[in-house]
Amino acid sequence: MAIVTFTTDFGFSDGYVGAMKGVVLSLAPDARLIDITHGIAPQDVAGGAIALAQAAPLFPRGTIHVAVVDPGVGGARADVVVAAAGAIFIGPDNGVLSLAAAEPRQVYRIDAGAFRREPVSPTFHGRDVFAPAAGRLAAGAAPADAGPLLPSLVELDPPLVRRVGDRVEGRVTHVDGFGNLLTSLGADVVAPEAQIEITGREGTFRPALGKTFADVAPGELVAYIGSSGLLEIGLRDGSAAAATGAGRGSPVRLRSGP
Amino acid sequence: MAIVTFTTDFGFSDGYVGAMKGVVLSLAPDARLIDITHGIAPQDVAGGAIALAQAAPLFPRGTIHVAVVDPGVGGARADVVVAAAGAIFIGPDNGVLSLAAAEPRQVYRIDAGAFRREPVSPTFHGRDVFAPAAGRLAAGAAPADAGPLLPSLVELDPPLVRRVGDRVEGRVTHVDGFGNLLTSLGADVVAPEAQIEITGREGTFRPALGKTFADVAPGELVAYIGSSGLLEIGLRDGSAAAATGAGRGSPVRLRSGP
Amino acid sequence: MAIVTFTTDFGFSDGYVGAMKGVVLSLAPDARLIDITHGIAPQDVAGGAIALAQAAPLFPRGTIHVAVVDPGVGGARADVVVAAAGAIFIGPDNGVLSLAAAEPRQVYRIDAGAFRREPVSPTFHGRDVFAPAAGRLAAGAAPADAGPLLPSLVELDPPLVRRVGDRVEGRVTHVDGFGNLLTSLGADVVAPEAQIEITGREGTFRPALGKTFADVAPGELVAYIGSSGLLEIGLRDGSAAAATGAGRGSPVRLRSGP
Repeated sequence: MAIVTFTTDFGFSDGYVGAMKGVVLSLAPDARLIDITHGIAPQDVAGGAIALAQAAPLFPRGTIHVAVVDPGVGGARADVVVAAAGAIFIGPDNGVLSLAAAEPRQVYRIDAGAFRREPVSPTFHGRDVFAPAAGRLAAGAAPADAGPLLPSLVELDPPLVRRVGDRVEGRVTHVDGFGNLLTSLGADVVAPEAQIEITGREGTFRPALGKTFADVAPGELVAYIGSSGLLEIGLRDGSAAAATGAGRGSPVRLRSGP
Repeated sequence: MAIVTFTTDFGFSDGYVGAMKGVVLSLAPDARLIDITHGIAPQDVAGGAIALAQAAPLFPRGTIHVAVVDPGVGGARADVVVAAAGAIFIGPDNGVLSLAAAEPRQVYRIDAGAFRREPVSPTFHGRDVFAPAAGRLAAGAAPADAGPLLPSLVELDPPLVRRVGDRVEGRVTHVDGFGNLLTSLGADVVAPEAQIEITGREGTFRPALGKTFADVAPGELVAYIGSSGLLEIGLRDGSAAAATGAGRGSPVRLRSGP
Repeated sequence: MAIVTFTTDFGFSDGYVGAMKGVVLSLAPDARLIDITHGIAPQDVAGGAIALAQAAPLFPRGTIHVAVVDPGVGGARADVVVAAAGAIFIGPDNGVLSLAAAEPRQVYRIDAGAFRREPVSPTFHGRDVFAPAAGRLAAGAAPADAGPLLPSLVELDPPLVRRVGDRVEGRVTHVDGFGNLLTSLGADVVAPEAQIEITGREGTFRPALGKTFADVAPGELVAYIGSSGLLEIGLRDGSAAAATGAGRGSPVRLRSGP
């Protein structure tokens, strides 16, 4: 029984998600459908890529992950199926799959009639391309049946991390439900003695680097490596987002040494 | 294995939805439960009817759809099972099923003891009537086992479209997560040369009729036939709802000719 | 096929919930995953306990319920598996399981290596402890395999009901999507002639005790025993929360006699 997951920015008050699920079940009645989230901020491709990368590695081998955050729907970007290490990914080729789809990976443009629901709506490839593709793969088709091989997968632009002189610059990629600020900076770029700067509407703050909330007093900011292996900034017993005025896209800088 | 879907206005912070799922599984342990949405605006019967009509036609034949948007719970409206073309619908007879349940259809009042969980709470027929009915049907009961045949299904009131002289009047039925305004006007009543008027708090606007967002400049309104075959009004790279001040219930008018 | 439910305060825009589901499916590929809710207010242990207690009793015998509302994650509270009458509960031992896990119940601290995913993140026991425990139990392990027996389960603090002289005091435990105020006062403490007082930002109100909304005029407050057997306060055709200014934690008092 194939597992099919869904990660979208469709929200929770429409029939869009249900329509996609219906299409998958019509083609693969035994598929098991799992919601990762439909609460990605509208058109936040990086946010979708990160949520998918948080969840996908935990699923069983062979899971089919559908991700639809697609500001360019109906435009030039390709619809793709990616056969990656251990899992299959389906979505628009705009970067949303790029963090989760581990190398080695083959990228196929969705082209075959059997992988589309005609006529394809110019505004809803989720229902008319990605869901049919997921249904066919769940029913046993191979990724290569989708269409021609593409040379590579589109990466996120701007990239999530860049180096400027002796600094490393990242950004807040997500504010979770507790007001914690998740950043794009991986544990590998955060030296133990690094000075961390986060800038939001309320100014620039320099949280101490700790291991957990218990390392600081109530009401204080703390930076720590979160459960996804990325630098996060939280406030003990409160919301770091409210205290700093930072949000998605806010810059986070690391300087080495004091 | 029966598929049972759920469309409600229960929101996402209560145990209500979980209680319904538990009841269905207790009667039909093999049923496959699929959320369409629980984010219908409270008591928005038309919104629930539309979301269900967007999603239901995509599901496999025989799917059982439960829809609970029920301002009159405990009052005079009937609880019904509808055996429609290709699917079964369960909910209050207040119009919420009327768009999705395709003709020919038989309407049964839920009356049989086996289709109810006694004592039936006057405020929660979802758990005590609709979920048990879904569980029984998923376990193999026939719609006619629910109770007596009713002559017809209640339609939405007011209707979603009406003609006034040479004008056709509809309304905004939903604002999606992107700020697009979905209307009740089907492609069949929108002539290619129609002049479209939408009125919101910010005034009356006359968007051009296009095929997709790419037909207008960034920041401009565009009207187009959406993925559900209904007229929608969007704003390229922005929110039509914010720009027009229109929301659910706002009038949309079509005038023929210039 | 085991059923595993999820009740959390993780919200709907992260990959956290998906990560938990992936871990469960990796250990128990046949488990059926059911969302109760992920919309508990952040760190609202009582709110999580109540939602779980609303839903859990309706599920089939043997269902495995995972509840993660965990302000103390990484701290001193235990991670536990509770073998209760008819169901298994998994979560932090902070009260969130205490309303739903019916007596008689055995409480086991999660200690065994097979019930954890090493290294355990100090901030995400949902993925690294509770989900692996659910997966192992769904795959056939016994609750006693989790670790040593504990003498009891932690109860909610403060308690949901207390007696002060001839008064009974409870509190608003939840505001539902319709603006109804759910209280912690069970039908057993509400005498038919009781005088009910609810205090919010807009003052103190004394709603009449009725059976349903139809007992009062539009715009009036009414107190009634809700579908969960608890006192609720609603406003006919409107929001009791908006009218009273009461919210989660607001005091509700019962005085006997007039």
